[in-house]
Amino acid sequence: MKKPNDIEKLFRCDGRKKVRLAKIDPRQKTGLEDRKKAERRTEDDVQAIDELQDRLYAEGKQALLVVLQAMDAGGKDGTIRRIFGPVDPLGMRAVGFKAPTPEELAHDFLWRIHKQVPAKGEICVFNRSHYEDVLVARVRGLAPRDVIEKRYDQINAFERLLADGGVAIVKLFLHISKDEQRERLQERIDLPEKRWKFNPGDLEDRKLWDDYMEAYEIAVNRCSTPWAPWYIVPADRNWYRDAVAAAIIRSRLQAMDPRYPEKKIDPTIRVV
Amino acid sequence: MKKPNDIEKLFRCDGRKKVRLAKIDPRQKTGLEDRKKAERRTEDDVQAIDELQDRLYAEGKQALLVVLQAMDAGGKDGTIRRIFGPVDPLGMRAVGFKAPTPEELAHDFLWRIHKQVPAKGEICVFNRSHYEDVLVARVRGLAPRDVIEKRYDQINAFERLLADGGVAIVKLFLHISKDEQRERLQERIDLPEKRWKFNPGDLEDRKLWDDYMEAYEIAVNRCSTPWAPWYIVPADRNWYRDAVAAAIIRSRLQAMDPRYPEKKIDPTIRVV
Repeated sequence: MKKPNDIEKLFRCDGRKKVRLAKIDPRQKTGLEDRKKAERRTEDDVQAIDELQDRLYAEGKQALLVVLQAMDAGGKDGTIRRIFGPVDPLGMRAVGFKAPTPEELAHDFLWRIHKQVPAKGEICVFNRSHYEDVLVARVRGLAPRDVIEKRYDQINAFERLLADGGVAIVKLFLHISKDEQRERLQERIDLPEKRWKFNPGDLEDRKLWDDYMEAYEIAVNRCSTPWAPWYIVPADRNWYRDAVAAAIIRSRLQAMDPRYPEKKIDPTIRVV
Repeated sequence: MKKPNDIEKLFRCDGRKKVRLAKIDPRQKTGLEDRKKAERRTEDDVQAIDELQDRLYAEGKQALLVVLQAMDAGGKDGTIRRIFGPVDPLGMRAVGFKAPTPEELAHDFLWRIHKQVPAKGEICVFNRSHYEDVLVARVRGLAPRDVIEKRYDQINAFERLLADGGVAIVKLFLHISKDEQRERLQERIDLPEKRWKFNPGDLEDRKLWDDYMEAYEIAVNRCSTPWAPWYIVPADRNWYRDAVAAAIIRSRLQAMDPRYPEKKIDPTIRVV
């Protein structure tokens, strides 16, 4: 089994090499072949993340932003639940971005995003994000092409602003295969207890699968930077996806090295 | 051992009977005498809360607001961690209210609170709340007395608005003794790993202990309503506090009876 650090490196895109999604197998289990062992490792990583979050919160000087993107049924909700479920809600927030409201549309596309970025000491997970504005917006033509073209640089500048202010950024693309998506969507139709999650619009997006893959590939290649790398997480197997995501987040948090602040207090004080 | 429902009733203040804090023993373990059994029950209640939250989120029609108030070192952070740590962050938010900013002070005292109330489907926990404006504000004279006097009715009307909109409200006062607070604050001075939590201002507030108890008693008596009851949680023993808080929240969530929505979907659809 590879160490969390090695897993982090394995799937990191930092802009130096062009990424081809078609070459990355969503069913692979590289570095973590044994499921039972991988699950134990995830548990261990999740505990470490919880401890690191406590330090981050106490320290109050840095923040972590996790961006989650995936096709429908790609496993965003499951990943958030597995990795951040156990984390203390006092220093941790999940934010879901839906179709923009009229008020949001009356501003630039980063306006609603900026309002939700983590404060110092916080971890924030974006369930979908500003990347929708170069993904669904591109595929469905929701904005003119020249407007969308400018957004990649605008995103890089925005993420640089955050990084300069002490926000570490981890962007995870949960990469599932078209076959796996079919099975998962079918399950949402077949199983009564999953039916509430089914959205007929998902079938429309599925028809545009190849266009979405192209849009993801462009986004990953144009917006992978040393300060805000993308990670392609093979996600056909939930246990592997969780193990990889946990390894990446643990590894990034460890690199931030948050520390409990040293407070100068007169130790002879007696509380009366 | 008493059932969660009985615990909920035991400590509920709904405005019909005057509460005297001095008569409620913070060290008691009524109804849950055995620590080991109580801890197992807490675990069971926390799991039930997690499941009910999932239904609440799926249903998307009701919300739960939990207000937490206590003296310094009263156990607010610990309670949030124990009860809401395991809850899926997608449908759950903790919000801490600190001393108001200049912008917040330029509005009425409920302005910043209103922005943070839970949306349909959400659980939101307030770590301190609008009650600070009748607690610290009263004890330290941060607003004229006649302004503060009006706030109790304003709070009741505001909470009624929320309740009418489908927000269930649970207000927990974590009730610790003055002796217990001394021990906890002393620990924050003596133990290096707890020192970052120590705030010298806490010692100033401690000198005003009796004034705070009076302010809490007034707030509980004037703002306990059937739609937004206060609960006095005996909190000198952390395990008992957690067990009581979990029982109350579970019981309130069960009464809301959230259900997975029935979605009409043609079950013969095949995903291609």
